[in-house]
Amino acid sequence: MNVLAYNNEGGPEPRLRRPVDLRVYCLVDPLQTRGRSLVDVAKAAVAGGATLVQYRDKHGSTREMIANARALKAALEGTGVPLVINDRVDVALAAGADGSHVGLDDMAARDARRLMGRDAIIGLSIGSVAEARDAAYEAVDYVCIGCVFRTGSKPDAEPPVGLDGLRRIAEDIRRFDPKVPVGAISGIHADNAAAVVAAGVDGVAVISAIGAAPDPWMAARTLRLVVDRALAAEGQS
Amino acid sequence: MNVLAYNNEGGPEPRLRRPVDLRVYCLVDPLQTRGRSLVDVAKAAVAGGATLVQYRDKHGSTREMIANARALKAALEGTGVPLVINDRVDVALAAGADGSHVGLDDMAARDARRLMGRDAIIGLSIGSVAEARDAAYEAVDYVCIGCVFRTGSKPDAEPPVGLDGLRRIAEDIRRFDPKVPVGAISGIHADNAAAVVAAGVDGVAVISAIGAAPDPWMAARTLRLVVDRALAAEGQS
Repeated sequence: MNVLAYNNEGGPEPRLRRPVDLRVYCLVDPLQTRGRSLVDVAKAAVAGGATLVQYRDKHGSTREMIANARALKAALEGTGVPLVINDRVDVALAAGADGSHVGLDDMAARDARRLMGRDAIIGLSIGSVAEARDAAYEAVDYVCIGCVFRTGSKPDAEPPVGLDGLRRIAEDIRRFDPKVPVGAISGIHADNAAAVVAAGVDGVAVISAIGAAPDPWMAARTLRLVVDRALAAEGQS
Repeated sequence: MNVLAYNNEGGPEPRLRRPVDLRVYCLVDPLQTRGRSLVDVAKAAVAGGATLVQYRDKHGSTREMIANARALKAALEGTGVPLVINDRVDVALAAGADGSHVGLDDMAARDARRLMGRDAIIGLSIGSVAEARDAAYEAVDYVCIGCVFRTGSKPDAEPPVGLDGLRRIAEDIRRFDPKVPVGAISGIHADNAAAVVAAGVDGVAVISAIGAAPDPWMAARTLRLVVDRALAAEGQS
C-alpha cells in the first residue's frame, strides 16, 4: 500500500503521487460528533491512530467551513496526518488544507488537481465498476470505494455494493492503475473492518464509527489495530 | 462611477482596481428563470443592456455549478460583460469566470482576492453601516448594498434598509473608500430604480426583475434606460 507512482497530470513534469496512508481514514462531520467539536474528534482520532482526516460539511456556510478547516489544520499541525476537505476546493485553498476529496457531484478530479497544484492530495470517490472505468487516476492520489454497507451518515446514497461488489470494484481500479491506494467507506466499524480489508483495500474510511463513538480515541485505536492485523494477514503491510 | 483606484491588496505592487460597470447588474439564479435556461436569461439580459452578470446558485452541486458557470462564460464571450460567481471561488476558478461575489457568510474578500489573483473582479455585499466600516475595500472592485427592499428572492435576508438606509450606507462606504463603485440589491425594478440611483449608487442589481420577467431582454433594456437617465440626472454618468 501507499506505493509511489509517477503520473503526468498537474504539470509538464511527471508528478510523483503523494503517498497517502488510508488505513484509518477519519471523516469529521458536524452532524456526527455527538456534540463534540470537530477539533476534539479529529485530535482524538489521530491520537488513537487515524492516518488521514477529512472535513466533510454539507450544510455550513463557506465562512464557517473555512473557519472549521483552519481550526482542524492547526489542530493536526505536527502530527504528520494530512487534512483533506470534502468537495470544496475553495475551502481547502483558503484554509491551507493538504488536499480535497471529490466525487461524482463535485469538481472533476482533474480540475481539482489543476487548482490545488501538484503537491496537493486529491482523493476520489468511486461507487461502481463504471465509475472505476471512467476515473482520471493520473489526477488522484487515492480512491475510496463506497457505499460498502448501508449507513445513516449518507442517507441519499446509492445502494451499497457489499463485500463482493467492493472486491470487484477494487480489482477493476487496480486494472486501470495498479498502484493507486484504495480505501472503502460506508457502514464500516471495528466488527466488519477486517472483512473489508480482506476484500482487497488498503484501509477503511469512517464517519460515525469514530465521530459518534462514546470514545473517539478508543474507536480509532481499535479500528487501527483491526486494520493493521488484517493488512498483515493479507500480506499487504 | 467606475473610477480607477490604486490599492495594495493582491501582491507586492499596488493593484489597479478593475473597472466594473454596475449600472444593470443581472444575477441569474436557477430558481428565478421562469423555466428558461440560465444562458438564455443571461444572453437576453446582456443584449438588453445588462453590464455585469452574476451566477448565483444556493442549491446546485459543485459539478452542476461548474457546468452552468462554463456555459454562462461561453455565452458571454465577446460581449465584454464579465461573469462573476456568487460565493463559490472554487466554481469561479474551475470555470474561468471573471471573479466572485462574497458576503458575510462567504469567503472573506481578502481570501478571495488571494485565491483569484490580482486581475479578478471581487465584489462584496454590504448590509449595514457596521459592515461598511469593517469592509476590506482594498481587496474589492465593487460593493453592493442590500437588502434595499423586501424581496422573495432572498427569503432569509435581514430587514431591508430602505432608501434612507441605502443613502446612509453608501455615504459611509464612500467615507472609507471614495472611489469604489457601489451598487444596490433586493426588490429593485424599473419603477423604483431611479429612486435607488438617486440615493447615491452607481447601479442596480436585480434577480427576478430580469430573470422572472415575461421578457428578460425588455426588462433589462428598460432598467438600463431608467438607470442611465437617473445617473445623468445625478451628474454621475
